[in-house]
Order: sequence, then structure tokens, then C-alpha cells
Amino acid sequence: MTYPETMEKNMQTASSGLDGVIAAETRLSHVDGLRGRLVIAGVSVEDLAPNASFEEAVYLLWNDALPTAADLASFEERLAARRRLPGAASRTLHDAAAKRVPPITALRMAAGTLDADQPDAGTREQAESVLAQFPVIVASYHRLLAGLEPLEPRTDLGAAANYLYMLTGMEPPSDRVRALETYWNTVMDHGLNASTFTARVIVSTRSDLISAVTGAVGALKGPLHGGAPGPALGMVFEIGSAQNAEPYLRGKLDRDERLMGFGHRIYRVRDPRADVLSDAAARLVRSAEFEETYALARHVEEVAVRLLAEYKPGRGLQTNVEFYTALLLHGLGLEADFFTPTFAASRVAGWLAHCLEQMESGRILRPESRYVGQVNRPWVRQDERA
Amino acid sequence: MTYPETMEKNMQTASSGLDGVIAAETRLSHVDGLRGRLVIAGVSVEDLAPNASFEEAVYLLWNDALPTAADLASFEERLAARRRLPGAASRTLHDAAAKRVPPITALRMAAGTLDADQPDAGTREQAESVLAQFPVIVASYHRLLAGLEPLEPRTDLGAAANYLYMLTGMEPPSDRVRALETYWNTVMDHGLNASTFTARVIVSTRSDLISAVTGAVGALKGPLHGGAPGPALGMVFEIGSAQNAEPYLRGKLDRDERLMGFGHRIYRVRDPRADVLSDAAARLVRSAEFEETYALARHVEEVAVRLLAEYKPGRGLQTNVEFYTALLLHGLGLEADFFTPTFAASRVAGWLAHCLEQMESGRILRPESRYVGQVNRPWVRQDERA
Repeated sequence: MTYPETMEKNMQTASSGLDGVIAAETRLSHVDGLRGRLVIAGVSVEDLAPNASFEEAVYLLWNDALPTAADLASFEERLAARRRLPGAASRTLHDAAAKRVPPITALRMAAGTLDADQPDAGTREQAESVLAQFPVIVASYHRLLAGLEPLEPRTDLGAAANYLYMLTGMEPPSDRVRALETYWNTVMDHGLNASTFTARVIVSTRSDLISAVTGAVGALKGPLHGGAPGPALGMVFEIGSAQNAEPYLRGKLDRDERLMGFGHRIYRVRDPRADVLSDAAARLVRSAEFEETYALARHVEEVAVRLLAEYKPGRGLQTNVEFYTALLLHGLGLEADFFTPTFAASRVAGWLAHCLEQMESGRILRPESRYVGQVNRPWVRQDERA
Repeated sequence: MTYPETMEKNMQTASSGLDGVIAAETRLSHVDGLRGRLVIAGVSVEDLAPNASFEEAVYLLWNDALPTAADLASFEERLAARRRLPGAASRTLHDAAAKRVPPITALRMAAGTLDADQPDAGTREQAESVLAQFPVIVASYHRLLAGLEPLEPRTDLGAAANYLYMLTGMEPPSDRVRALETYWNTVMDHGLNASTFTARVIVSTRSDLISAVTGAVGALKGPLHGGAPGPALGMVFEIGSAQNAEPYLRGKLDRDERLMGFGHRIYRVRDPRADVLSDAAARLVRSAEFEETYALARHVEEVAVRLLAEYKPGRGLQTNVEFYTALLLHGLGLEADFFTPTFAASRVAGWLAHCLEQMESGRILRPESRYVGQVNRPWVRQDERA
């Protein structure tokens, strides 16, 4: 069979990276990069994040309405009752810990087994189970890597308090719960980022939520997405003292190296989430040691923003969400390799919301490719190949 | 914080489903829906599928060149040596079988654990392991569901022969190996379908191959993609006899029901894969029982195509790949719920090839969403809510 040498070319322009292509309409969140605004289910992140409990914010995101006290209590109760992991997930985490698999990979592995016990659960029920179980997976794995058995989840605590309890074995003080809830509310949804898009593509085939969130963790784990939140804090530690900030940062900029924690693909002004998280970190009751790190980070930020304006004028390079995420999660006692899994424990609420929304639209998300390969390659039997 | 009521609307048109949007350039395969042609790595599917061994076709797809005898032998040897599953994957399959998890879900679960033993394997090495292990996962799970322990993979057989051996415990006759290889070659790649696109989106964040193929299985499992290949054959069985074909099919068309196995989103003429697979089924040495099913299927196809032209004139509704996939895999002794996992065991070669190609391009695939939700929803404290 032959094929015409001059192939018709597809008429559309290749959108390398799909920049500017709109793949979905959503009522879930709006990112206004020019004005530095983020709206989650209609409420500005500044209003929502520090005031709502995590369950309250997820209820709003999923239902497009703030819950009454009764609705919230019933939602909290259902979530708390669904925390226990399926046996397959627990065994996977044990296997992963024995091989020192990175936490975000372990989360992906365990997430993929979450429908082992109830392959036929309804969509809403499954969404609640996944939301309830993600932080339990992460906290259980944290214990396993430390050589400890995971703790049983508690049903008398909210999601954030239970997460901190399962990490530490101690009921957490309220300022830490508040800080984590503010963080989780801040990052629960953010337009059509790569992991959210992955989740939507997967359910667009009418596949299921577990498949979607498992794929989404896989996307999140990439360094271009959520997979590298540690370096911003690593830089602060490397700088070590206030007087070292300017020479260190000038050195980096002179060598044309990127400053981690600054600049964002969408935001051309300060990432609104950076403010919310910097306030949340400021309100955390701080140990002397964290007090010092916090002050140093603020100073590094100030110098970095000033120097970025000097070295890259007109680029509007500002502090992004990762800088204060790292600081806040460090303040909560988490190591850098648990930053992305802790992020995922909140973003999964957004993935699930996008899946439910995508399922309503009913269309498969399937763009096209343009063939640029060889044509008319003849089939040559192996013994006749040159 | 307030938000302007009249939000600026994004200027681009929403591409519901991303139809006609080009998301990637590829040298891997070209689907010409108008002319009914499929080219895999430059070779027409009619030339490639019935002549190449599966390993030979994958080598071509991955390397853009037909292998020499030495290259092929070394590739086969590496693949054969990588068949053994990590302990985490085996345990996951046992857990899944105990809960009677559907085979495609079990494949997704086990796929997600494939980096448990070697979290830091190189990309090429990982691609070979995944390709080698996918059919082993499926065959192992087939045994487990039947209450049998999985067989050890053999290193002296090719991928297709080993798959059939691990399913049945018997070294397969050559006509069955040839039929499976022809099938696998036919379906290994097909442009930017939803699962392949999923895999590309995931690795575009610089994530890893295991994350990508796990997400891709999740997409494939959706009924709009690969998740429903059984019904075409189910219809043939339901029809039961040649004389029942026309009244049965007329009944369906009168009630405006869809005929499974006919019509394709892209192909406007006969799916070229249908011919290749119908030939492959014809060449299979057939039992008397399969002979009857085969003859009936041919008859049903003939009547269906004739009636579709009558009921839906001008639509060009023709036999698609699923019709003969079902027939061929049934001829190989597989039950309908193993059709999609057996498909995945080949398509994973395409997913991996697309991942390697995407990794070279380096850009994150991230389209945009258009916000259609509420703006300026005030934050109201719970005790002040109506």
C-alpha cells in the first residue's frame, strides 16, 4: 500500500503547550493573573482561606453554596466516617516504605488502589472517600517511613486536625489546625492546571474518579507542576543569615540562575496566595527556631523582589505560592518531600470538583496530533534488511 | 475584597472537547480518517501488522527504524528479562482478585506500583520494564480470578507467546501467536486518542513513565474510549443465527439504538484495522464452535453495513476496530472483560513512545478554562447564614 508523499497538513495551528486554548468552562475557580486575584467558588481567596474550615470550603466548592450548620455537620460526619484505608492501600504503603519510595509516588500508588474495597461505589460516595483518605494515606506513609505503624484515624477531629494528629500522635493546638486549613483552602483549586486538566481528560472518557485522581497525582508529581516545592525553602536555609541574602541572590542572578519561589506562569503581579500564606505563617505560634527562619524568609523575599526588579525590569517577577507554602509547611513540622503530598491532600478536592463538572458536560477531551513522521516506509523482511 | 461584576471574558473560543485543536506533533502514527488509512511509524498498518513480530513493531515505533537481526534479538532479550513483577504489583493483584475488581481496574492498580522496586530507573529501562510487565499483569490477574496462582513468565518466548502461555499454562500454537501479534501490532498506536493524550499531559510536567501509563489506563477504562469492547460481540451472540440478523438489526435501528462495533469518530470509511483483524481472524485455525461464530459475525457485519446505509444514508457508518477485536480475542479464548486489558498490553507501547516524544518537546500541556461561576459571593460567617 502506498501513501501520497505530499500529505495534506492539518489546517489548524499547532498549539505547542495548548497556551490560550480553552478546554473547559468552570464555575469552580477563576485566576486573574493580571490583577493578581483568585476566586474560589465565587469567594476571593483572601476572604475564604483564613475564615472557612477545610470541610466548609470544600462544601462550598462542591455545592456552589455555603453550608448551613446542619449541612456542614453531616458532611463532616460522612467524611470522618470514610477515613479508614482499604487493605490494599495499606499494604501498598508498607511495600513502598520498605523500598523508600518517595512520598508523592507512594501517594500515587495508594490512590490507585482506593476502589479496591468498593469497586462499584457511587460517584458522590467515592468523591467523599477519596477526599477523606488522601491525607490519611500521606500521614500513614509519614509514619511508615519513620519506622512507625500508622495511627488509626480519629472520627472526632476535622480533616486538618486529624492529619496533624496522624502525623505526630498528638492532638494539635488550634493555631496549627488553623494554619493548615488556611493553606488547604488557599490551594484547593486553581483553574485548569496540568493535574486538574489530567483529571478532566480521564473522566471525559466516562472513566471513574479513582482513575482521575491517580492520574492527577502522577501529573502533579512532575517538577514543572507541583513536584518541586522544596527548593524555595532550601534557598532560604542556604542563605542562612540576613546579611548573606543580597550577595547570595546577586550571585545567582549574575549567573542567570532562576530564583525558586518567584515568578509565575499566570500571575503578572504578586500571587494572591502568597499574601494569604504569609499572613497564616505570621499567625502561627512560633518556636524560637521557626521565628528566626520566618524573619529570614521575609527578608530574603524583600531582597529577591527588589533584585528581580533590578535584574529583570518589567517582568513583574513576584513571590509565588511556593515560597510561603514551603515556609508554612516547614512551620508545621513537615519535611520538604511531604510538601507536595500535603498539597495534594487539598488539591484533590479541586480535582474531584472538576471531575464532577466534566462528567456533566459529557464530551470526550480529545485534541489532535499532526503527523510529522516518515511516509511510505516500505516493509522489508528482516533477512532482506541492510 | 470585591470583584468587578463584568468580568473580562477570555477571547479564545471554548473548544468543547478540543476538537480540531492540535496538541502535539508526532512521528509515531498517522490516522487519515477520510481515506481510511493508518500509518504506524511510516508503515501502513496492512503491511506492518500481519508481518512483524510484536517486538519488531515496537522497536520500529520507538526507534523510527526497522531493527537488524542483532538489534531485535537484544531488544527481545532485554524485554524477556524484565517480565517478573515487583512484589507490590503481585500483592495488589491478589488483593484485587479477592475483591473481584474488574480486570482493567486491577491493571490500573498494578501499573501504578511498577516503580516500587526501582524508583530511580532510567527512562529507557523503565519503558522496557513497563512494556514487558503489562501483559504479565493481565495474564497473572486472569489466573487469580480463576482461583489459580499466576505462572512464572518464561524468558524463552516472545511477548505474545508468553502472554498466551501465562493465560493457559500451555505453549501456544503458532497461529494463535500470529493472531495476537497481528492484533497487538494493529492497535499499538492511533494518533492522539484520549489515553495517549493523558499520558502526554502527565509527562509534560516532567513526571515519569509509570505515572503516565497509570493515568492512561485510567482514561482507557472509560466507556467512551476503550472501556466497552464487549458489546459488539455480545450483539452477535444475541442475534444467534443468520436469519435473525436482519430483523434484530432493523429493530434496533427502528428504535434509534446504536449498533456497537460500527461507526468511528475519525474514520469516514471502513476502519483499516477492521480489515486487518478480519483477515487475522480468518487465518486462525478455528474450532467448529468458533467457525460458527466467525461466519455469523461476518454475516451480521454485512447486514449491519447495508442497513446503516439505508437508515443513516450519507453517514458512511462502517465496521470499526472493535467489531473484529472482539471476534479475534474471543477466538483466542479471552472473556469480554479481558478485551480492554489485552488491548492495553499493546497500546502501552504507543503511550510510552508518545511519552518519550513529549519529553523531548519539553513544554507543559496546560490549556485554560473559562470561568462561568458566581463573582463577588460574600463570605458570610456560619452563624449569620440564612
